[in-house]
Amino acid sequence: MTATSPRVSDKKAPIVKKYSSCVGGRTRVKDIIGLEDQGESLIGQIVTVCGWVKTNRNQKGDDGLITFVEVSDGSMMQGIQAVLFEKCEGFEAAQSQLGTGAAVRITGELVRSPAAKQVVELAVKPSSKHEIKILGSVDSTDYPLAKKQHSKEYLREIAHLRPRSNLIGAVARVRSSLAACVHDFFQSRGFLYVHTPIITAADCEGAGEMFQVSTMMSKAEKDGKNLQIDPKTGKFDYETDFFKKPSFLTVSGQLSVENYACALSDVYTFGPTFRAENSHTTRHLSEFWMIEPEIAFADIKDDMDCIEDFLKFAVQWALDKNMDDLQFFDERVEKGLVARLKAVLEGPFARIPYTEAIEILERDMAAKKVKFENSKIFWGMDLDSEHERYITEKVFNKPTFLYNYPKDIKAFYMRLNEDGKTVAATDCLAPGIGEVVGGSQREERLDVLDKRIRDCGLNVEDYGFYRDLRKYGSVPHSGFGVGFERLIMYITGVENIRDVIPFPRYPGHAEF
Amino acid sequence: MTATSPRVSDKKAPIVKKYSSCVGGRTRVKDIIGLEDQGESLIGQIVTVCGWVKTNRNQKGDDGLITFVEVSDGSMMQGIQAVLFEKCEGFEAAQSQLGTGAAVRITGELVRSPAAKQVVELAVKPSSKHEIKILGSVDSTDYPLAKKQHSKEYLREIAHLRPRSNLIGAVARVRSSLAACVHDFFQSRGFLYVHTPIITAADCEGAGEMFQVSTMMSKAEKDGKNLQIDPKTGKFDYETDFFKKPSFLTVSGQLSVENYACALSDVYTFGPTFRAENSHTTRHLSEFWMIEPEIAFADIKDDMDCIEDFLKFAVQWALDKNMDDLQFFDERVEKGLVARLKAVLEGPFARIPYTEAIEILERDMAAKKVKFENSKIFWGMDLDSEHERYITEKVFNKPTFLYNYPKDIKAFYMRLNEDGKTVAATDCLAPGIGEVVGGSQREERLDVLDKRIRDCGLNVEDYGFYRDLRKYGSVPHSGFGVGFERLIMYITGVENIRDVIPFPRYPGHAEF
Repeated sequence: MTATSPRVSDKKAPIVKKYSSCVGGRTRVKDIIGLEDQGESLIGQIVTVCGWVKTNRNQKGDDGLITFVEVSDGSMMQGIQAVLFEKCEGFEAAQSQLGTGAAVRITGELVRSPAAKQVVELAVKPSSKHEIKILGSVDSTDYPLAKKQHSKEYLREIAHLRPRSNLIGAVARVRSSLAACVHDFFQSRGFLYVHTPIITAADCEGAGEMFQVSTMMSKAEKDGKNLQIDPKTGKFDYETDFFKKPSFLTVSGQLSVENYACALSDVYTFGPTFRAENSHTTRHLSEFWMIEPEIAFADIKDDMDCIEDFLKFAVQWALDKNMDDLQFFDERVEKGLVARLKAVLEGPFARIPYTEAIEILERDMAAKKVKFENSKIFWGMDLDSEHERYITEKVFNKPTFLYNYPKDIKAFYMRLNEDGKTVAATDCLAPGIGEVVGGSQREERLDVLDKRIRDCGLNVEDYGFYRDLRKYGSVPHSGFGVGFERLIMYITGVENIRDVIPFPRYPGHAEF
Repeated sequence: MTATSPRVSDKKAPIVKKYSSCVGGRTRVKDIIGLEDQGESLIGQIVTVCGWVKTNRNQKGDDGLITFVEVSDGSMMQGIQAVLFEKCEGFEAAQSQLGTGAAVRITGELVRSPAAKQVVELAVKPSSKHEIKILGSVDSTDYPLAKKQHSKEYLREIAHLRPRSNLIGAVARVRSSLAACVHDFFQSRGFLYVHTPIITAADCEGAGEMFQVSTMMSKAEKDGKNLQIDPKTGKFDYETDFFKKPSFLTVSGQLSVENYACALSDVYTFGPTFRAENSHTTRHLSEFWMIEPEIAFADIKDDMDCIEDFLKFAVQWALDKNMDDLQFFDERVEKGLVARLKAVLEGPFARIPYTEAIEILERDMAAKKVKFENSKIFWGMDLDSEHERYITEKVFNKPTFLYNYPKDIKAFYMRLNEDGKTVAATDCLAPGIGEVVGGSQREERLDVLDKRIRDCGLNVEDYGFYRDLRKYGSVPHSGFGVGFERLIMYITGVENIRDVIPFPRYPGHAEF
């Protein structure tokens, strides 16, 4: 590890990459068999590989016992095959300690592999330069991952060990790659990354199902005193709490990031958000990461342009950088995944106003082209998932923007259109998934905003800092929100949101 | 905004960059006067600029009134000067509404500026193609930022508007740039980004001053019921809480990210962490962002190599990408900042064992080269800030690693050295700042770890998942933690940590 370490993409020179950030120096598996020539150009070189044993087996050869070991270091899906020849340094010790999950350091020569499934393998021969060393052994009778295949439910119970499984390892690599993609997309377009606050006592966030953040409960337990509600206010006495006000975990960075957009023009936030909903579905978490760009001087059309660019950029990025793992998902998780992703890149997304979507649904129901469980279609309704999927899967068969929704089913901050009935909001729907991104143009007119706040039953006084943006140099601006886990599900095909985040939080579960 | 938008660094072609993510299309100020030739190559082009008025003044010319307006869009420190000629489109309206903070859209021709301080200015003449439009006006008698200079204390009170100030705008740009730098550094070296959990009910995190996360208090208020402590357990009844256990905000992602290092080798986390300490200093926040890399197969020396590489990389990055803003900090915040940063890049950091640091302090005190307020220097003590600063500022005058600290002043998870007295921990100290980064090699031997847990008065049973990593294929591994805000302070010279995060949280403060 030096400041001049070669980048992963510099694959020209047939030089073995060694990482000094390693006891003894090591080369990542990805930098051998992950090369375009699968390591052929490195044949003849001595390398050290460190990692964990995936499989091992012995074979009786002409020259004695031979041990085949597949070693993975997590840098890519595949491991490298090492071939240990009897009498090589460390062979004896390895015999008793090699097993799935054992940590090893192996130094040997990269040679052409006689097997079809790989170009090179690591030959460890009796030589002072070659060695196998067991760094950490495993009691295989006790190892929770000793067997090869495990259910996703079982893996969730050992979330601290599950990144060693093929599935969760692949998810981790794609998740990291897509996080880098988010920053690359926005930074290269001149957006500034803003860390909006996690803890908030802002009155305007007080609604909805939020987690409270407090030091009062632990203090009460320490003092052995019950927590008393003040009969006058119906509240606890927050003067003694850390922030001297009821404080909560944020549900969205949008309102905060708007402040920065109204000063620095193009900004985005990417951080954890929280919902205390008692939700046990495969699509909800109590703690999840959101990407929320906010663009000054942008209207709803610009917003849709940016959403479409972003989604295509992310899909292209994954195809470019994570094909290895995507092919695994295609085989094991969603047949046809890669083809589905490639289709996203072909041509523009569909864009229709909400009103037109209602007309299409009514028309196709009347023509008996489709039946819905909820067949009561009317202007003003919140579309159900089955309706949205019909539009994006059957009518357009591609990602589809619906926009200009009835104001009564949308949030107060969305800009009222000229018709006085709809707001400049959009949902981006994708076949097989449903809503992927939601966005809107924000109401920049103070008088209209105030009326909307009141009409939604909220208090104008609670929105002081938000209203200030409309008092002092107000500008048209738009933004959107992408649930990062939903994006990963969309790109990997993984169906349960609990499997695309390292340590999922949901009701009753905050272990590890 | 399209997927093919030019990158900011593509500065070759004299083509005006237009962002379609804009009502009417706009060009960022940075893409005009931020060019290497300060916009000279764009002379003669018609551009639209959107932003907020910094200053404006009228002047009587031969052809009538001329208004000079400096417009900033936050893309860089400087604004662009627009020159409005009487009778240009929108001139009349502008006369009554132009003022500091007003939002404007200006279309005009880039012409050579007669003034010395800029190469080009935006001329808005009577022409169907030129226009000034007020997007949002400001009542200057009411605008909190109407005057030019404000104290940092005052700016904190209007944290939602302060990114419009020069200081906080510059901090925001550097902060965003350094966040991108963090990802670039680790991703380009093959590290995977891991989102460790924010909410945790893991027993091993229970110690220390943490914020509790709960839905019990709001439920109790809703039901009008006091919260009763169970006299038997001395605790509230957490069966009714969201996670059915006492749950807290994480103080560090380290223990979680170690799980991923022990599967994927090279990982890092970068996310918010929390401390419920009643701390009112200029160096502490209740909510702050931490960068925590974790490297499998790495020892303490590798760890120091990585820390040094990272710090130099970050300093070089800021010098390369944010010189504009660094020069502002050099002028207004810390004289000599740029020279200080450049010095960091020269030569290797100093590295000495803790024991040697003690010897140096004793020696120099005995030789009367230095006096300390705390003059009781002895092996085993936790060094005070004055001692650390003497070492890094006077003895070495450059960033300095101290390593191999006495085990009794360090955490249980740090690897015990062969001497049985010290652990493989390191602090990286910097002149003028003190500790910037802390790291350690982790104890990978289960028996030694268990003994250390017990010796520290902790319960081995609480560390089940952490101990599993030592049971199943344990590997030597190391990591470190960088407080992101401290890094920004180090690179900008800004002295109060509350000014380097958008919305600072500290006791009594969680507004906005």
